[in-house]
Amino acid sequence: MNKRGFASDNNSGVHPNILKALSEVNQGHVVGYGGDSYTQKATDKFREIFGEACDVYFVFNGTGANVLAINTLSHSFHAVLAPHTAHIVTDECGAPEKLTGCKLIPISTSNGKITPEMLSKHLHGFGFEHHSQPHLVSISQVTELGTVYTRDEIKTLCELAHQHNMYVHMDGARIANAAVSLDLPFREFTVDAGIDVLSFGGTKNGMMMGEAVIFFNPDLSEHAKYFRKQSAQLFSKMRYVSAQFLAYFDNDLWKKTANHANMMAKILEMEVRKLGVEITQEVQANGVFAIIPDAVRDELQKHYFFYPWDVNRHEVRWMTSFDTEETDIHNFCSKLKELLNG
Amino acid sequence: MNKRGFASDNNSGVHPNILKALSEVNQGHVVGYGGDSYTQKATDKFREIFGEACDVYFVFNGTGANVLAINTLSHSFHAVLAPHTAHIVTDECGAPEKLTGCKLIPISTSNGKITPEMLSKHLHGFGFEHHSQPHLVSISQVTELGTVYTRDEIKTLCELAHQHNMYVHMDGARIANAAVSLDLPFREFTVDAGIDVLSFGGTKNGMMMGEAVIFFNPDLSEHAKYFRKQSAQLFSKMRYVSAQFLAYFDNDLWKKTANHANMMAKILEMEVRKLGVEITQEVQANGVFAIIPDAVRDELQKHYFFYPWDVNRHEVRWMTSFDTEETDIHNFCSKLKELLNG
Amino acid sequence: MNKRGFASDNNSGVHPNILKALSEVNQGHVVGYGGDSYTQKATDKFREIFGEACDVYFVFNGTGANVLAINTLSHSFHAVLAPHTAHIVTDECGAPEKLTGCKLIPISTSNGKITPEMLSKHLHGFGFEHHSQPHLVSISQVTELGTVYTRDEIKTLCELAHQHNMYVHMDGARIANAAVSLDLPFREFTVDAGIDVLSFGGTKNGMMMGEAVIFFNPDLSEHAKYFRKQSAQLFSKMRYVSAQFLAYFDNDLWKKTANHANMMAKILEMEVRKLGVEITQEVQANGVFAIIPDAVRDELQKHYFFYPWDVNRHEVRWMTSFDTEETDIHNFCSKLKELLNG
Amino acid sequence: MNKRGFASDNNSGVHPNILKALSEVNQGHVVGYGGDSYTQKATDKFREIFGEACDVYFVFNGTGANVLAINTLSHSFHAVLAPHTAHIVTDECGAPEKLTGCKLIPISTSNGKITPEMLSKHLHGFGFEHHSQPHLVSISQVTELGTVYTRDEIKTLCELAHQHNMYVHMDGARIANAAVSLDLPFREFTVDAGIDVLSFGGTKNGMMMGEAVIFFNPDLSEHAKYFRKQSAQLFSKMRYVSAQFLAYFDNDLWKKTANHANMMAKILEMEVRKLGVEITQEVQANGVFAIIPDAVRDELQKHYFFYPWDVNRHEVRWMTSFDTEETDIHNFCSKLKELLNG
Repeated sequence: MNKRGFASDNNSGVHPNILKALSEVNQGHVVGYGGDSYTQKATDKFREIFGEACDVYFVFNGTGANVLAINTLSHSFHAVLAPHTAHIVTDECGAPEKLTGCKLIPISTSNGKITPEMLSKHLHGFGFEHHSQPHLVSISQVTELGTVYTRDEIKTLCELAHQHNMYVHMDGARIANAAVSLDLPFREFTVDAGIDVLSFGGTKNGMMMGEAVIFFNPDLSEHAKYFRKQSAQLFSKMRYVSAQFLAYFDNDLWKKTANHANMMAKILEMEVRKLGVEITQEVQANGVFAIIPDAVRDELQKHYFFYPWDVNRHEVRWMTSFDTEETDIHNFCSKLKELLNG
Repeated sequence: MNKRGFASDNNSGVHPNILKALSEVNQGHVVGYGGDSYTQKATDKFREIFGEACDVYFVFNGTGANVLAINTLSHSFHAVLAPHTAHIVTDECGAPEKLTGCKLIPISTSNGKITPEMLSKHLHGFGFEHHSQPHLVSISQVTELGTVYTRDEIKTLCELAHQHNMYVHMDGARIANAAVSLDLPFREFTVDAGIDVLSFGGTKNGMMMGEAVIFFNPDLSEHAKYFRKQSAQLFSKMRYVSAQFLAYFDNDLWKKTANHANMMAKILEMEVRKLGVEITQEVQANGVFAIIPDAVRDELQKHYFFYPWDVNRHEVRWMTSFDTEETDIHNFCSKLKELLNG
Repeated sequence: MNKRGFASDNNSGVHPNILKALSEVNQGHVVGYGGDSYTQKATDKFREIFGEACDVYFVFNGTGANVLAINTLSHSFHAVLAPHTAHIVTDECGAPEKLTGCKLIPISTSNGKITPEMLSKHLHGFGFEHHSQPHLVSISQVTELGTVYTRDEIKTLCELAHQHNMYVHMDGARIANAAVSLDLPFREFTVDAGIDVLSFGGTKNGMMMGEAVIFFNPDLSEHAKYFRKQSAQLFSKMRYVSAQFLAYFDNDLWKKTANHANMMAKILEMEVRKLGVEITQEVQANGVFAIIPDAVRDELQKHYFFYPWDVNRHEVRWMTSFDTEETDIHNFCSKLKELLNG
Repeated sequence: MNKRGFASDNNSGVHPNILKALSEVNQGHVVGYGGDSYTQKATDKFREIFGEACDVYFVFNGTGANVLAINTLSHSFHAVLAPHTAHIVTDECGAPEKLTGCKLIPISTSNGKITPEMLSKHLHGFGFEHHSQPHLVSISQVTELGTVYTRDEIKTLCELAHQHNMYVHMDGARIANAAVSLDLPFREFTVDAGIDVLSFGGTKNGMMMGEAVIFFNPDLSEHAKYFRKQSAQLFSKMRYVSAQFLAYFDNDLWKKTANHANMMAKILEMEVRKLGVEITQEVQANGVFAIIPDAVRDELQKHYFFYPWDVNRHEVRWMTSFDTEETDIHNFCSKLKELLNG
């Protein structure tokens, strides 16, 4: 199925600028494993964006990034607190537990966002050796439900965590979509809001692969290079990730692609609402969560690959992408309309 | 340093055909995580090469491949026996131990190849719960010392292992170089020789990234997909690895590039021998191991990045690559000659 | 504080019969690590109780037992489903995650018991490699809230699990208290009800230390001896645990001690109810959960060491033991009365 | 077989004073998990012996102690260097790898003792992320070959390690036998010689079970309590280990028992030498390593349980114990003589 659907933003291909960048760095020999000038430049770029103090590590994918963040900041007897819908909780086949030894404590939320009240209930047992020690809070920005934390919400969570000598990790698999949604520079809702470590993803927004783990306090990242290598996330021909990030930031490519994806979601939302479809989450980025009858879902899936979300409540998830076109939405909604009316 | 040196075959770039393949698959949406037609085709290609029964899993890199092979075939109480120079023993920062829990038992060798005699000494303690149970033998083909096992050597090792209900893993990071060195089809010195699981690499021979773990007995690979995901080695936009493999096999590209690299090593060997340099290992693939005075090494490293091998015996390692040119060798040897005579 | 309190059933000492047994086996040399005749006899005794087919492994403590059960039945990509109050979830400092790599999925319950309805919500994602695979259900009998599953409740849970090719583990740290509460032989609410593996504890009922992991299907326990050794739970002078179990079963010592503890809990419940104290859980074994004002709790703790349970709802936990005497309850309630009236 | 043999010092029973101590502390309720006064006293005793600064953690057994020491001092990307005969290398079924993630690097020795020269060869690759970082040296005192390091040998090794910012662990499963062999107070060849962390065992010298992990620099032990709990080594009824240590130190019981065992080994050595048996290791503690014909070994094993050591060189191991009597040696040697002459 080589048409554009709404299954996931990783079903899309690679932005042409990114592909071009791969060709451009494809010359001569350079030192492997990140000792090349492209990687230096990409790192510098991240420092320009997030501040000079940050320490940057490129890895292959999101799970690799999240695991590196946890491994570097935690001991195995620590607990990581995250929404029950978080990618690290439900979509990584237990990689965090296996690769870090930490306990993951899922916090129930209705919209993918944890509040200080929810978090507070888990802030106990410090110093009591029978309990995994609460140590790291992990939030996703954009959340897995397509919602976006405000800068102040992040700030308040970080303050609460820091008051308990805990750290805050942000899973930024869709951080570009959040930035355009909030209309804020990256640093304002990350390092400046108190985030300690960030998984910065680009794959869901036009890159081929590669993620950056950014430690905002270099004291925390002393061992990151060993944990990256030991978890099989050190890319030998690193330049081919670094070059992607350089192209991604060049001329704010990331902003254009994310902005487009978010706009497409808004249009998709509008169109399906017109069909009387119930939307279950606020559409703040590039995800649309909707309730449709099971029979309609099953039939629609024959034409478009996408994931059911909560089967019990007949909920499905549709994601837009940097390359989604209005025609795609139009075609999709036509088919949906036909089925709903069928 | 953007000129071509002899530090490692992963300091080279990507073969143009491979890059082109990335562009060609860059159209439309496809299902992520390997559910696309390119991945199906690449898998079929591997089955064509290695036999219908094999089960193929693509991962990001060599360490990821080796760990997946071990995880899938072993329990944590198992021991993996490998030459003390093996990549899994010395160059993966303990990834196998951390990610599988297994004990690695290093076997001392002089040329990177283990013999049945060496192996036999470690085949005891079966059923005795105080000892990690010998379970997996891992050999590298090409070895980390540039030597190549013959088909019969592999056969004999596999028979010995199988007699003890053990399995044999081949780390084929440079398997193409071995194939052209032996002038044998892949399957003759792998599955047909008794190998149970193979890490098939291409990154050191012109690919950008990506490795395939091939289980020759599908009964052994039942859990591989979970271990791949749990070890953060499942690529969301999988088509971009699959496409590389398709291009790699197309028109025997792999054979041309590996053949070239091996030939270049032969020439490099010949040229440095002319300078009176002692060669410490038989040059059977694309690596040349040599003894040079420390002062010469230090000075040469100012012009060419490369790794010392065994500092105590003044040994260095030089690797040729698919894109090495005779001029590169000429220039390198000129500088070396100058320094040796200096 | 050498008086008897209500903090935990492991604050009590060792039953005299158990101590005596230690002396009696203290003669001559015997083979270590369980190769002795006492261990054979203790194993035979367990087979007499639970059926000939079972396979028995002695370990040091409850966490060791639970981890051995999980390790032996699971791969790291599996999920273990348990009540959120389970010992393996909250009181083992993440030992299951660290030592097995598995994900623990906590199920919210009000009384420590999971129902088929609760369990069913988590029985999805089978075969989908992004999710830890549901594989093992772990229930505690007695639960950590002092409640007891009926035989039928266990049967129904086991049937549901088995329908999904899952296994059921019972954490029997207080299994003797459950047996007398249910007035059933051990096997009726374990192996005969469908339990696959049992952590059989005695430490909380008069033993010094030692727990038995009992696999009811020997096909499942093939690797248990290696996992026991590798997790540092193989006792060299095993006879000193085996002898305890022999004494524990001799003349139904376990039944007398457990029966006494349960009765004492009933009396304690009755006495504190008389003082107007609210009891939050049904008292079915040897635990009493109660609501008392924080000030009373703080003052009472100066005289008796015990644990708060749920601070937010002013709940505390009191445990009775095999050696609790009515005078202890009387003294305790007098003090409590004084404080409540103060 | 309830007679006294020479299989292992853990085949013996428990010294009567130790058993008596168990009875004496068996009164009333005390706080569990080490919060009792006996544990405080035992800890104080260790501080009296090793210095006020040390931090003491009781665990169940030797493997548990070694793993706790490694876990507390190391990250998973660290390497532990130890003789290839070390208990942690060959007799713990890979527990260190599984439970700490670290790589164990075995160093070949002829007598179980590593020298600075041997160690030096492995002190490289610092800061190079591809290699597990050399971090901890582990030596056994007494070694697994019955030899004993001198104070100066230990000092020199510790200095070398510390120069490289590494730590030194001592596996003191038979530390009492070493102390009487050296005729030195414990602290002179441990903390005063530079040892950073010690596994202090008593089980092989008359205790029932229990080992103490002693950190000589409390800065290093900050997380020990969590690692102990998470590795299932926290004993609920701790007083029954603490009491054993109190009895062990009372009136220098440890010295008498260890001295006796060592003397018995000397006599055993003398007696078998008289029979023309070759002794392969210097008898410095309570182990005797000897060469006997395979047929003699097999026949002798029908009468006495003991372990072959190195089958290839027809070597066996005989251990004496605190309760070995001269008659036992006499009987054993009579049988041996008969078989040798047969």
